[in-house]
Amino acid sequence: MVIIMKPGASTAEIAGVISRIESMSLTSHPIYGEERTVIAVVGNDRPVEKSLFETMAGVDFIQPILKPFKLASREFRKNDSAVPIIGSNGTAVNVGGDKRIVLIAGPCACESRSQVLESAWAVKEAGARAFRGGAYKPRTSPYSFQGHGEEALKWMAEAREVTGLAIVTEVMAPEQVELVSKYANVLQIGARNMQNYALLNAVGESMRPVLLKRGMSATMEELLMAAEYILSRGNYNVMLCERGIRTFETYTRNTLDINAVPVLKRMSHLPVVVDPSHATGKSEYVLAAARAGIAAGGGRSDHRSAPRPEQGHVGWRAIADAHGIPRSGQTGPPHR
Amino acid sequence: MVIIMKPGASTAEIAGVISRIESMSLTSHPIYGEERTVIAVVGNDRPVEKSLFETMAGVDFIQPILKPFKLASREFRKNDSAVPIIGSNGTAVNVGGDKRIVLIAGPCACESRSQVLESAWAVKEAGARAFRGGAYKPRTSPYSFQGHGEEALKWMAEAREVTGLAIVTEVMAPEQVELVSKYANVLQIGARNMQNYALLNAVGESMRPVLLKRGMSATMEELLMAAEYILSRGNYNVMLCERGIRTFETYTRNTLDINAVPVLKRMSHLPVVVDPSHATGKSEYVLAAARAGIAAGGGRSDHRSAPRPEQGHVGWRAIADAHGIPRSGQTGPPHR
Amino acid sequence: MVIIMKPGASTAEIAGVISRIESMSLTSHPIYGEERTVIAVVGNDRPVEKSLFETMAGVDFIQPILKPFKLASREFRKNDSAVPIIGSNGTAVNVGGDKRIVLIAGPCACESRSQVLESAWAVKEAGARAFRGGAYKPRTSPYSFQGHGEEALKWMAEAREVTGLAIVTEVMAPEQVELVSKYANVLQIGARNMQNYALLNAVGESMRPVLLKRGMSATMEELLMAAEYILSRGNYNVMLCERGIRTFETYTRNTLDINAVPVLKRMSHLPVVVDPSHATGKSEYVLAAARAGIAAGGGRSDHRSAPRPEQGHVGWRAIADAHGIPRSGQTGPPHR
Amino acid sequence: MVIIMKPGASTAEIAGVISRIESMSLTSHPIYGEERTVIAVVGNDRPVEKSLFETMAGVDFIQPILKPFKLASREFRKNDSAVPIIGSNGTAVNVGGDKRIVLIAGPCACESRSQVLESAWAVKEAGARAFRGGAYKPRTSPYSFQGHGEEALKWMAEAREVTGLAIVTEVMAPEQVELVSKYANVLQIGARNMQNYALLNAVGESMRPVLLKRGMSATMEELLMAAEYILSRGNYNVMLCERGIRTFETYTRNTLDINAVPVLKRMSHLPVVVDPSHATGKSEYVLAAARAGIAAGGGRSDHRSAPRPEQGHVGWRAIADAHGIPRSGQTGPPHR
Repeated sequence: MVIIMKPGASTAEIAGVISRIESMSLTSHPIYGEERTVIAVVGNDRPVEKSLFETMAGVDFIQPILKPFKLASREFRKNDSAVPIIGSNGTAVNVGGDKRIVLIAGPCACESRSQVLESAWAVKEAGARAFRGGAYKPRTSPYSFQGHGEEALKWMAEAREVTGLAIVTEVMAPEQVELVSKYANVLQIGARNMQNYALLNAVGESMRPVLLKRGMSATMEELLMAAEYILSRGNYNVMLCERGIRTFETYTRNTLDINAVPVLKRMSHLPVVVDPSHATGKSEYVLAAARAGIAAGGGRSDHRSAPRPEQGHVGWRAIADAHGIPRSGQTGPPHR
Repeated sequence: MVIIMKPGASTAEIAGVISRIESMSLTSHPIYGEERTVIAVVGNDRPVEKSLFETMAGVDFIQPILKPFKLASREFRKNDSAVPIIGSNGTAVNVGGDKRIVLIAGPCACESRSQVLESAWAVKEAGARAFRGGAYKPRTSPYSFQGHGEEALKWMAEAREVTGLAIVTEVMAPEQVELVSKYANVLQIGARNMQNYALLNAVGESMRPVLLKRGMSATMEELLMAAEYILSRGNYNVMLCERGIRTFETYTRNTLDINAVPVLKRMSHLPVVVDPSHATGKSEYVLAAARAGIAAGGGRSDHRSAPRPEQGHVGWRAIADAHGIPRSGQTGPPHR
Repeated sequence: MVIIMKPGASTAEIAGVISRIESMSLTSHPIYGEERTVIAVVGNDRPVEKSLFETMAGVDFIQPILKPFKLASREFRKNDSAVPIIGSNGTAVNVGGDKRIVLIAGPCACESRSQVLESAWAVKEAGARAFRGGAYKPRTSPYSFQGHGEEALKWMAEAREVTGLAIVTEVMAPEQVELVSKYANVLQIGARNMQNYALLNAVGESMRPVLLKRGMSATMEELLMAAEYILSRGNYNVMLCERGIRTFETYTRNTLDINAVPVLKRMSHLPVVVDPSHATGKSEYVLAAARAGIAAGGGRSDHRSAPRPEQGHVGWRAIADAHGIPRSGQTGPPHR
Repeated sequence: MVIIMKPGASTAEIAGVISRIESMSLTSHPIYGEERTVIAVVGNDRPVEKSLFETMAGVDFIQPILKPFKLASREFRKNDSAVPIIGSNGTAVNVGGDKRIVLIAGPCACESRSQVLESAWAVKEAGARAFRGGAYKPRTSPYSFQGHGEEALKWMAEAREVTGLAIVTEVMAPEQVELVSKYANVLQIGARNMQNYALLNAVGESMRPVLLKRGMSATMEELLMAAEYILSRGNYNVMLCERGIRTFETYTRNTLDINAVPVLKRMSHLPVVVDPSHATGKSEYVLAAARAGIAAGGGRSDHRSAPRPEQGHVGWRAIADAHGIPRSGQTGPPHR
């Protein structure tokens, strides 16, 4: 449930509520807003007695959260969350929260220093704000190339220095989180690890922004529950990534679940990102999928009150996590 | 395979080729183009000896069709096909072939004369060019309402007279084709009947435009093979409809396979239509899905040569097969 | 709902109940048992007022049927139904209702008179009680061989005369039902036609035993609802056939849903048949799948009261719808 | 590829081959058989030149392994592997390799010392050879009970001391492997972690027997590739576990892919285990699923040479990983 404090509730009143929550072996997640403070109460599956809080000083009212995910839900936070991604020059770009499209692009695997630097420049010229490359690669076969590891992280850090692009890269095990965080700005959780709870807990404690990819056959609720693991450890900088699901179709590698864009935005305040490269698996369809992603995010989810979309007014950010760098200026969806 | 005749091949030369095809118990499908004639040869699974045709008078060259679908393939016809839909005033609107968006909308089931007439006006005011309503309803339960049948067809015919909208309605059995064709302009094949071959053959012989819906768990190739059944009977007026596939997701009724738009357009010359209502199953997501459908069709499938899309320049037609009539002016994607 | 008449209710009392049912535009399905008569009331989605019947003369009590399928449910009929299949010599074998295993086998398609006769003898020697061959073939491609039609039906009828085996064959369209019924003992509805309602209604009126195959991606409830279409037309001789569902697996053509055996037997009184050939798609796995089918049907669904299975005491019938005739004596599960 | 040494090849010859393999930065996996030694060569995706080895002293011939999994394949090892599970009294029971059925059973989660001890006795009386209980629980929600951890491991170790049953329990993160190995005899990898490669590597180095569960939507090939990760680290004691896959069915929690039993046994020498509890999700269907699992494993995969199964002669081991302890003597499949 969420405890909504009165506007102007005192610090002591807020502390009193938090103290009662913790005395019950529950966890409090306060958000200190400009106008008022709201405090989420989470902890276990048992229902919490509302009346224990609603008469406390400074409490305005209590709102139950009916969904199984709490901190990730729209009921907890009405406005879109923005996740700041910080490049080398210290300027942050927000993913979510306003109307700019943010592109992330880069090669599947970092193969050499020169490949990383060249593709970073190409990606920057194509309008991307962050560079994504693989240092540790989850491979179906133990005999396949597993990535250049820390060496690749260093190449990417160098690319950040020279281009200013933020770095996004996958982390595959709890014990890698510290090392990867030394170099990368965003930690990616891959589809195969979406329910690797030890890893979710580890990135939940790192405070780095997390790009959380939907599992290959996961439902949206399972994705939101995975996000909840990270949020419940105190890291609210989570981006949800639709990267295509496994279906019977053979003409594409995966099936982009475009419905996920409006549905996740309605269910959750977290930013939604689309990966058109994995979601199609063929470069000739990446552009169409990226455009669809932007268009699907452009409208408010309730069509009754939705204004007609205007040129240059898309309310959603696409991440073209492109495999194989397309020629500059032709990469992804239009941006401005 | 496809036999491409020389520009200026004589009528006698064309007849000679067709005659040889038929002497081999195969079927010829000629397309008489402005510049030249091409003739598809279909018939059975056995390969046809190319050399039997390539030395004939008037023959320019032979192109094999490697896909299992022949008449539906891009290899058979390079340009987009247009399917003309004709309303009461005799003016046709093309689905496919140019850049206008065509909307089809209407209620799931025709429930009364007044409901049909009122919703037809609402649909027309919202910008649709065709009215879609159910007269015969495929129901999971034999005890559910099965539709008003011929009476509903008459209501829709009346709606066409007064609004000028073309009529689209489902046909469920071969023996219904004649009756439904008396009233409707477009015959819809529902998802559950996508592989009802007796029905595909029947509409293939009727020459009415067909809106062919993808089966709930069908692959794109299976959809194209179902279209091939209709085309092989001589009816080339087929529209392919992506209406959402069955997946594990529970927040939506179906999953819109948005990849199908660029893939089908690359594989086939037939127009591609999206049904955002069934593909989401919830009215709050119809607008986002419709926009995604338009955006996915806006780019050519090969991004290397694709120009940036301009405002008002979408190359694909969406059909908002809306259940429950939304308020006028707010229905579907923008059109002009 | 089901109206359970008292033991010894008079003919007039039964007629009175049926008459009231029909006066309400509902349909009655009486079962005249040895001990008492029960009458199912079906008709539409609206609930029927129980009190209208429970005070009528001869009525013992009313049992609602909560499932969406009514006549197919265990609530309607407690005991296993038996479907009699009749061979040429007039002797019937029951599928369902007792403990014998009934095998059906034969080639995918009937290719010639000699192939049909030879394989019928092989099938008989291997212990099968019915021969299954394809006369009309549902083919993904319109250019593939579509079956020998009536000629093949005649070959199978001849095979029945000489071997005594009953004949099972697929019917694909309502207008074929009459012709196919002239030759075949059991009408098969293929997986692609499981929701072809015009066809279900047609076989529902024919009174021939029906082998109803589960659709490729259909749920068990959808299968039972398809059976309900047939039953609601008065044809109670329906066998449910699990033939494998579509999954992501590539090592087999389909995935045998072995859970369907105990689940369908718990939900419904109709006999359950397994098709191990389509469910695996590879001859080397047919034997294992057939054995699993028999084993899954051998126990009562409630393990709390289940006795240990004894040798030779399997309570379920498998149909090895084998493609490619295995050598005699090695085909399928043991029979006696 | 696999290098098959001649019968009687000398130690020096074997060492020579291994030395050449390692000089090429590849890894050798020798199996020292009674009759002869075979050496698998694995390492990366590149093909290895056969001729470098086939003329070496002591080498008989080279057999390529075409499958992407090498050490897990039948091509590497013709005979069924046996995985020994050791209980408290030091007596081992083999899973795989002969004809006895081995049952593993126990509660989903260890909830208290008394629950563990009581259920261990019940499981033993029902004929099981190993006890399976959850100490660390992978939970969709971070707020659900996550297991009693090391305390639960101690309860299970105590249960082993008193009953003699071996202990099977899930390990969820690489850093848990050492701790869990102190108490458990078999490490279970759960379905959600099937592609958690850091974890697979960690158990691959631990040498404890591993029960590897198939991912919810994984193909058999992906399961075998996951096993290959463990084998390639030198731990050959891997059991493959079919625990049901995600499908569209709603009457059961998962769908038992019974085809996996003969297919995995044909593709691999590793023992195959069925989990009838997760694969159905409802206790009333566990018995039927367990029986089907045993029956599916009873025949050799090639039916042409398969003898009729005899009473008490089932060639496959089922593990009834039962949730909720059924009453003694009625649990699972018959054993002797």
